[in-house]
Amino acid sequence: VTLDEPSCWARLAIARHGVLGTIHPDRGLDVVPVVFAVRDRRLVLPVDTVKPKRARRLQRLANLERDGRCVVLVSEYDEDWSRLWWVRVHGLAAETPLTDADGAALAERYPQYRRAGSISSLITVAPAAITGWSAS
Amino acid sequence: VTLDEPSCWARLAIARHGVLGTIHPDRGLDVVPVVFAVRDRRLVLPVDTVKPKRARRLQRLANLERDGRCVVLVSEYDEDWSRLWWVRVHGLAAETPLTDADGAALAERYPQYRRAGSISSLITVAPAAITGWSAS
Repeated sequence: VTLDEPSCWARLAIARHGVLGTIHPDRGLDVVPVVFAVRDRRLVLPVDTVKPKRARRLQRLANLERDGRCVVLVSEYDEDWSRLWWVRVHGLAAETPLTDADGAALAERYPQYRRAGSISSLITVAPAAITGWSAS
Repeated sequence: VTLDEPSCWARLAIARHGVLGTIHPDRGLDVVPVVFAVRDRRLVLPVDTVKPKRARRLQRLANLERDGRCVVLVSEYDEDWSRLWWVRVHGLAAETPLTDADGAALAERYPQYRRAGSISSLITVAPAAITGWSAS
């Protein structure tokens, strides 16, 4: 069953996590787990200091600087496959400064971000196309 | 904490689901939820007739025919972020015929595939690089 756009936004609003795909010049693409908030029809993904990272400069930011095309996928797995669903956002993303409003939205959603300094900047995704699917 | 390769394989062996990223000629990349089994250091992903699809010919197959580079990400979300982990496999993938052994491995893992005809072919991923991370 194809989900209409309001249903997609509703599911994005309650989803707790997703994955971000970006374009890598050599290996073609990268996919990483992300958390996010929905703000004014944009997705804001924290570049945080909370979850330890492997590299000082995140590869996702280097990828987006070269090519802003990205995809965010939110999906729910269940052993009962009649309960599967996903929502996918294709769009353009860039690193943006943390604003108070975006920080508040993320802190409301994730208690881990209530500590000052827990977010250093954002990846803001401007959706170009939203698609969704539900098994039932 | 970086996971070593045996730990990555161990987590892939027990993971129930993941996402597959492929390269799309126009929008750059696609990411879809997938299930899979591990067989002889390859990942086998069913092209199935069980979960209803939006298109008759899967876009992921068209993408892989043009460019076999792909990524499979398996990640576990938990509200306690000290329990987060992920494993990522970069590799080359292609559509392959369903073999009895691969079908049996998938059927053992997912009861949904015990019905004859539930899998029409496979996407087989030959890993080129495996990385993993765990918060603790």
